[in-house]
Amino acid sequence: MSLSMSQSSLPAFTIGLNALSAILDKAQDFANVKKIDSTVLTVWRLAPDMFAFARQIQVAADLAKNASARLAGIEAPRFEDDETTIEQLKTRLSKSVAFLSTIDPSQIDASAEREITFPLGTDNQGRMKGSDYLNHFALPNFYFHLTAAYAILRQCGVEIGKRDFLGAIPITMI
Amino acid sequence: MSLSMSQSSLPAFTIGLNALSAILDKAQDFANVKKIDSTVLTVWRLAPDMFAFARQIQVAADLAKNASARLAGIEAPRFEDDETTIEQLKTRLSKSVAFLSTIDPSQIDASAEREITFPLGTDNQGRMKGSDYLNHFALPNFYFHLTAAYAILRQCGVEIGKRDFLGAIPITMI
Repeated sequence: MSLSMSQSSLPAFTIGLNALSAILDKAQDFANVKKIDSTVLTVWRLAPDMFAFARQIQVAADLAKNASARLAGIEAPRFEDDETTIEQLKTRLSKSVAFLSTIDPSQIDASAEREITFPLGTDNQGRMKGSDYLNHFALPNFYFHLTAAYAILRQCGVEIGKRDFLGAIPITMI
Repeated sequence: MSLSMSQSSLPAFTIGLNALSAILDKAQDFANVKKIDSTVLTVWRLAPDMFAFARQIQVAADLAKNASARLAGIEAPRFEDDETTIEQLKTRLSKSVAFLSTIDPSQIDASAEREITFPLGTDNQGRMKGSDYLNHFALPNFYFHLTAAYAILRQCGVEIGKRDFLGAIPITMI
């Protein structure tokens, strides 16, 4: 009995991005009720030198897309980082989820021992074994940006909870 | 080539808790330099109805400890949630890391298909297949509370960055 690389990546990324999309709907509802421009939310930051909300979403989407592509050994589509509205951010997420659905899981499954090279910031590169890259770089970073986006909305007063963060996970309540 | 359940859980939890402990050192240094009582930080929250910093640490430590124990089919030690200082929180983390080091990885490896039942809040229970519990509940929640703790300190002005969050991961910089 073991896990597969695809099982620990594709469903986790897809569930997370879809959860984020549903959270964006709640953010839009909040903006409508409070009669505020939703871009007030998309530029909000937890600290002056942390990413704004929109950037947190872009980076979360790119982590899912690029990590999956690197593990599968294929090229990922590139998206412009030009979203400023919640609707545009939802489109970014749906394009990313659509890309994930095109990846053949068996290509990712073959990556556990393969060396993955990836950009770090603008000048550097990192190299990790595929399984380490997934467990210690892609997943922690993905959840970091998901949580940061969630926390920004919580701080702004949007009514979301841990179930919104976890999304449509395969759980039975008893 | 596949992943194992232990490989996707124990090292990720251990690296994350050790990263948090090093972040706590930086928080203590910050408090010393600014001449503030470190409990100013331990009670800080991102929103009034989100957990305070100390609770974020306790929950992150418990997620690592309890999820690993449930997957291994063993009993986890219970710790009182009575930490108020950074030093006490560091002790909580080191006790949790010490417990993780006692777990036989092969016990966790056998859990991918086993059903795991776990408390949800005070009144409910959830049930998930072992691999789903790890990928879609334990890991997302663990990183959620790690990120929340990190974000609280960033908001307070502690100088930490993404490398502090990721901790001692097996990466080669090229």
